[in-house]
Amino acid sequence: MGELSEVPVGVLISGSGTNLQALLDACAEPDSPAKIAVVISNRPGVYGLERAREAGVPTVVAPHRDHPDRRTYDAHLVSTLRAHHVQWVALAGFMRLVTSTLLDAFPQRVLNIHPSLLPAFPGLDAQGQANAYGTTVAGATVHLVDEGMDHGPILAQGVVPAEPGEPVETLKQRILQMEHRLFPMVLRWAVEGRIQTEGRLARIDLPPGQRRWLI
Amino acid sequence: MGELSEVPVGVLISGSGTNLQALLDACAEPDSPAKIAVVISNRPGVYGLERAREAGVPTVVAPHRDHPDRRTYDAHLVSTLRAHHVQWVALAGFMRLVTSTLLDAFPQRVLNIHPSLLPAFPGLDAQGQANAYGTTVAGATVHLVDEGMDHGPILAQGVVPAEPGEPVETLKQRILQMEHRLFPMVLRWAVEGRIQTEGRLARIDLPPGQRRWLI
Repeated sequence: MGELSEVPVGVLISGSGTNLQALLDACAEPDSPAKIAVVISNRPGVYGLERAREAGVPTVVAPHRDHPDRRTYDAHLVSTLRAHHVQWVALAGFMRLVTSTLLDAFPQRVLNIHPSLLPAFPGLDAQGQANAYGTTVAGATVHLVDEGMDHGPILAQGVVPAEPGEPVETLKQRILQMEHRLFPMVLRWAVEGRIQTEGRLARIDLPPGQRRWLI
Repeated sequence: MGELSEVPVGVLISGSGTNLQALLDACAEPDSPAKIAVVISNRPGVYGLERAREAGVPTVVAPHRDHPDRRTYDAHLVSTLRAHHVQWVALAGFMRLVTSTLLDAFPQRVLNIHPSLLPAFPGLDAQGQANAYGTTVAGATVHLVDEGMDHGPILAQGVVPAEPGEPVETLKQRILQMEHRLFPMVLRWAVEGRIQTEGRLARIDLPPGQRRWLI
């Protein structure tokens, strides 16, 4: 697709941005229908901002502490995203719960990636939770964001083996590799208009040969 | 292994016993280190009892309503299992919570199979829960039983694809096929003495080429 038909995507980060890097790399491919239009971090100085700059993508630092509450903060995010003509929003390690202020501005157009096979292990340190529980499979989930934590309609899941008692760091790395495969694949489905929802079920008009789970 | 070294296993059922059938078939193999010594059903007339009889395995009907409480019932199960020299107990669709009366008699030697990737979707109708949630992977888990519901140390998990919005019956069948692969594999590890636990983590001395997850 040509420059004119690329769909602008905003990415929200809080940290080093390895998932952001996977999205930047995918969107740099000549046939990518998406382009990252802006990267917003709620924390200054994180390495993800540097990754965006190196890719020539505009960056914005938007500290949440500058705003009195979540809704006011989200209104600021919305205006920043709209200023960059964003159509889809990807949360890539963004460590803030979002409110309906953001979700209503981008209805069914906010994606999140979470390092577990949801609904198992929502919330913080999903990999540590899985490691402590002793599961023998683990993984990552890309879902549409709703107001519940790690709760919205599931778009795709990637499975990795887990070994009870292994160091949590090896499990984290294995899941992270899966995240880097999963998120660009689903973002592409999103910007290609392949996703429809019915209640909390998402239906996807999959490209030939693709499927909603990876291993 | 010869007849004399076969490890007696007791299987508890409540219904048609398709997992029981998978265990009966596996234990009928000439190299099986396990033999099903008794099948106990808490419900009379279920087809699982017929499967056991057809395999030449002793059956016992032990209605839970004949006992005033869970512990008295479990004491009855323990004496029945002991009368058949049982060393391992497999719950194959046994729809009763067990108490420490049973668990203390067979410490870390009671196995259960559950039709989800635990800890997601414990309890009744796990497949229906997954289907309603809209996961894109589902599966089955074999675990050691503790006093929590579907909670003890995980031994192995099997993953199947799930399609949000598919009829729950197709998902059930897909998971059931996986259960039939998973349970005999893990029962064999158990009777071969390959399982050790440390807190809620189970470590398994796996046979060459085997692993704790199937797909």
